[in-house]
Amino acid sequence: MKKRLLIIGGVAAGPKAAAKARRCDPEMEIVIYQEEDEISYAGCGLPYYISGVIGEREDLISRTPGKFALEGIKILKNRRIEKIDIPSRAVLGRKIGSGEAFTDRFDKLVIATGAYPIRPKLEGIDLTNIFYLRSILDADAIFEKIQSKDIRNVTIAGGGYIGLEMAESLIHQGKNVTIVELAPQILTLFDEDFAGILRQYLEKMGVRVFTSEGIQALRGTEGKVTHVQTVSKGIEADVVLMSLGVRPQVELAKQAGLKIGETGAIWVNERMETSAEGIYAAGDCTETIHLITGKRTWIPLGSTANKQGRVVGVNVCGGNDIFPGVMGTTVFKVFDFNIAKTGLSMREAGKEGFHPIQAIVRGYDRAHYYPGEKESVLKVIVDRETGRILGGQAIGEGPSDKFIDILAMALHAKMGCRELANVDLAYAPPFSPVLSPIIVAANVLTNKLEGKVEGIQASEVREKLQNQKETFQVLDVREEDEVKEKKIPNTTWIPYGELKKRVHELDKTTEMAIHCESGLRSYEACLKLKHEGFKNVKNIDGGMLCWCYDLEVSPPQASPSSGRGQNGGGQN
Amino acid sequence: MKKRLLIIGGVAAGPKAAAKARRCDPEMEIVIYQEEDEISYAGCGLPYYISGVIGEREDLISRTPGKFALEGIKILKNRRIEKIDIPSRAVLGRKIGSGEAFTDRFDKLVIATGAYPIRPKLEGIDLTNIFYLRSILDADAIFEKIQSKDIRNVTIAGGGYIGLEMAESLIHQGKNVTIVELAPQILTLFDEDFAGILRQYLEKMGVRVFTSEGIQALRGTEGKVTHVQTVSKGIEADVVLMSLGVRPQVELAKQAGLKIGETGAIWVNERMETSAEGIYAAGDCTETIHLITGKRTWIPLGSTANKQGRVVGVNVCGGNDIFPGVMGTTVFKVFDFNIAKTGLSMREAGKEGFHPIQAIVRGYDRAHYYPGEKESVLKVIVDRETGRILGGQAIGEGPSDKFIDILAMALHAKMGCRELANVDLAYAPPFSPVLSPIIVAANVLTNKLEGKVEGIQASEVREKLQNQKETFQVLDVREEDEVKEKKIPNTTWIPYGELKKRVHELDKTTEMAIHCESGLRSYEACLKLKHEGFKNVKNIDGGMLCWCYDLEVSPPQASPSSGRGQNGGGQN
Repeated sequence: MKKRLLIIGGVAAGPKAAAKARRCDPEMEIVIYQEEDEISYAGCGLPYYISGVIGEREDLISRTPGKFALEGIKILKNRRIEKIDIPSRAVLGRKIGSGEAFTDRFDKLVIATGAYPIRPKLEGIDLTNIFYLRSILDADAIFEKIQSKDIRNVTIAGGGYIGLEMAESLIHQGKNVTIVELAPQILTLFDEDFAGILRQYLEKMGVRVFTSEGIQALRGTEGKVTHVQTVSKGIEADVVLMSLGVRPQVELAKQAGLKIGETGAIWVNERMETSAEGIYAAGDCTETIHLITGKRTWIPLGSTANKQGRVVGVNVCGGNDIFPGVMGTTVFKVFDFNIAKTGLSMREAGKEGFHPIQAIVRGYDRAHYYPGEKESVLKVIVDRETGRILGGQAIGEGPSDKFIDILAMALHAKMGCRELANVDLAYAPPFSPVLSPIIVAANVLTNKLEGKVEGIQASEVREKLQNQKETFQVLDVREEDEVKEKKIPNTTWIPYGELKKRVHELDKTTEMAIHCESGLRSYEACLKLKHEGFKNVKNIDGGMLCWCYDLEVSPPQASPSSGRGQNGGGQN
Repeated sequence: MKKRLLIIGGVAAGPKAAAKARRCDPEMEIVIYQEEDEISYAGCGLPYYISGVIGEREDLISRTPGKFALEGIKILKNRRIEKIDIPSRAVLGRKIGSGEAFTDRFDKLVIATGAYPIRPKLEGIDLTNIFYLRSILDADAIFEKIQSKDIRNVTIAGGGYIGLEMAESLIHQGKNVTIVELAPQILTLFDEDFAGILRQYLEKMGVRVFTSEGIQALRGTEGKVTHVQTVSKGIEADVVLMSLGVRPQVELAKQAGLKIGETGAIWVNERMETSAEGIYAAGDCTETIHLITGKRTWIPLGSTANKQGRVVGVNVCGGNDIFPGVMGTTVFKVFDFNIAKTGLSMREAGKEGFHPIQAIVRGYDRAHYYPGEKESVLKVIVDRETGRILGGQAIGEGPSDKFIDILAMALHAKMGCRELANVDLAYAPPFSPVLSPIIVAANVLTNKLEGKVEGIQASEVREKLQNQKETFQVLDVREEDEVKEKKIPNTTWIPYGELKKRVHELDKTTEMAIHCESGLRSYEACLKLKHEGFKNVKNIDGGMLCWCYDLEVSPPQASPSSGRGQNGGGQN
């Protein structure tokens, strides 16, 4: 009898496992069970289908059942598997619609049941016009609904990246969009400073953003939602998109007695095998290892699902492939901003017991003299004790994805920042500054590790400006034209070029945080003041690039300008 | 007495060393000697200045002498250093113009004398309108000359990347451009297949390309060049641009008795110190370590010069920074093609004693369903014995720079292809296919290492088609519409979908090389035929993407098409 491989779940990891298994074993019987009427579709593309960027729904379908059939892979749609009977090596299920029961035997089984959206227990949650976005059928429903001109106000519950992608989609569709987030910031996987940059950008693009706003209830009339009620306000909403995150779909595995990990997802070993021999799991329903912390983690992503599906496809045929783990690398686009991250944030690194320090630099995509320049703000994080790179973040119109991919590779290599400072990256004027922003950041970090200049985060500066006025001062070393545009309140202003002759104006005894636009001139200023005998000077990480708090817009005292400093020098 | 640092050379490494030294030591005297009238300019930007992409000449100047003066760095231009007197710790030189001699003492010395263009001993080499492109003054001269409408035909001697960048510049300026290259291919640092892709593209863009053509003489009338004479032809030329490469400028170092390395460039240790204590060298005049071969190498590049300058700046102040070496990472743009490389080519790897095998895949920049897709052809090379990645190349309108930077990091990490297959790169539909092309290539290589399907290079196929007709056949498994467009002569055509039922048409006893458009369907075909008992089937690396030889354009025999295979399956 031929070996029989059953796969539960037909979106990403399941079909990938099937295709790989077929290439490894031309004889094996392969069957994919799928609950929905669609299989093998691009879940990550759904926001772009809703926005109209992707014109044809069928473009989202990677492979039709007919294509699978050509390879001898059988697709059984509209069938819900209800039980895995491990001792008898069989699954039990029911056809959707007719309710007809069936059983099927397996030699090997792959669980690829994915994840489901969080549905909070809220008053009004069962009103109509409340949507979730997980499957292509959800996308169909949202797409159809928002075509109506009657739908003007859409509220998105949750400030994660899917909510943000949807905000863009809905603005493109001409809707009024409001994001409501319970946490004090959107995008909680990123640090406060970068989330602040994104929030300012979203607001500029016409999205209303409320943070620290828990939703208390959904209100409606005639069964339709009309308002989202938070602690402080009622927000008009013709449609509500619940985007509060997802949870791993583990019920089948749990009932079958398979081990569920500490993350709540299905436990697997590095071969992606569950606690039962011959039963594998892959994709959004499984946990894996975080390669920075070494701990078990659950980070559902389409790219991970595909890699895991391949590993499973090899192993169900008797191979011995491993999936080592992930580092939380992620990227998404909102309007023209590219936002990406790998590894740990400052906050996450602190929680994990590291002693993180950061460099924030301008991340240009080409030489300064080559026209058409785009820029992302780039952050690189390192552990003060070991010098090891822990993570990075990038945001802006520049090549955030490229920077983060380079950093992800540095994390895989367990590089320190001194090593990163001399990597041989591709340089030509249309592609990069002569020193890659990655290298500039590595140099800044090396300087910090060597104790040349200490950094201070914008959030800490803000807090000290409010609460330690007597013992804390902020020095702004930008030029007059920059200061006129915007200025942090209650700061001293001396342009970098005048610092030497005006140094007597400054108090050597108090703690001083210095900033410029991005942190380069202020770094030089720190060095100069330390040389002049200042003991407690710090460079504000990222300067004005990361200052997302109060601003003062007033003409400063007249002061002869010595010309705006080019970034020819710098921290590196 | 204050320490005195002299720096010979003021373009890239020199100014960088000066700036870093100033930050490390605010007191040191720092002087840069520069022979030209310009300092601190972007040599890599010169082709874009000539093309007009960079509008203002001053944009190329990173820092003026005035800026350096603000930091207490003295610039002495138009002075040629003629001797380094190591025992008396002094340099001897002469002012250009007046010829006035001078001497200057140093505590530390940095040699950053750069490189000079090769000037071949050719009949007619002293005619006017023959140019070299190395300094900003060369660029000025070329720029001025080509403004004239009388200059219609420009011949570029040398098919390296600077010659190619200039070809684009000159086409943009409306010139007729011919490239003459002595080697059998342009771009000799790349493999023949990728150089072939670029050649076809250049010809499409209107550049004439002659390879295997040695220049025998330059002919002219009234002192002006009019023709380039090669072995086989005379090429009309109102201007000739000599772009035959550069040599390290080591005369001063050699005369001073400093060690010159086996590459012909100045020997330095990993601290960038020459064979004499306290004398450092950096940039295009020095050799370094190739991190893949472990051998000494000389690869002059602006980015390397800047990194080395920084290291020297630290070390002249008593620091202990090291520059570990390079991997030959490079990128350049010609029209809309981005061409990049890191590590070794197939040919270089073979010469170095490795056993290289390659994967060639389509390198898309986004998910297949996300509009606006751009593509580069991507090659990744691995050593068959160890599985270690040795290098990569990318060419096309896609993100070649990003792919190569990821691979450069993989090389730094000494990764094998199995490890590379599971790296956590950033994925979202606007930024990458769900599996990065890097990962797809790593999977292809893993399959090859495991012996699943053997590859064969296009050049070998061509050679066997010519010389082993009796024992060698090529099978094309593309669809009818693709075959109609272009076809390799003397091949058998069976669409992939019909292979199973038509397998009897094929001869099991001869060696068979299979191709499709990119290598995915042909990989599947190889697996199928091996399963059918074919012993000697090989997949042609890169398929039609890398076939730069003879083509036949004729309607094939009618054959019912089973629909063009999507790349949903594949080699990975």
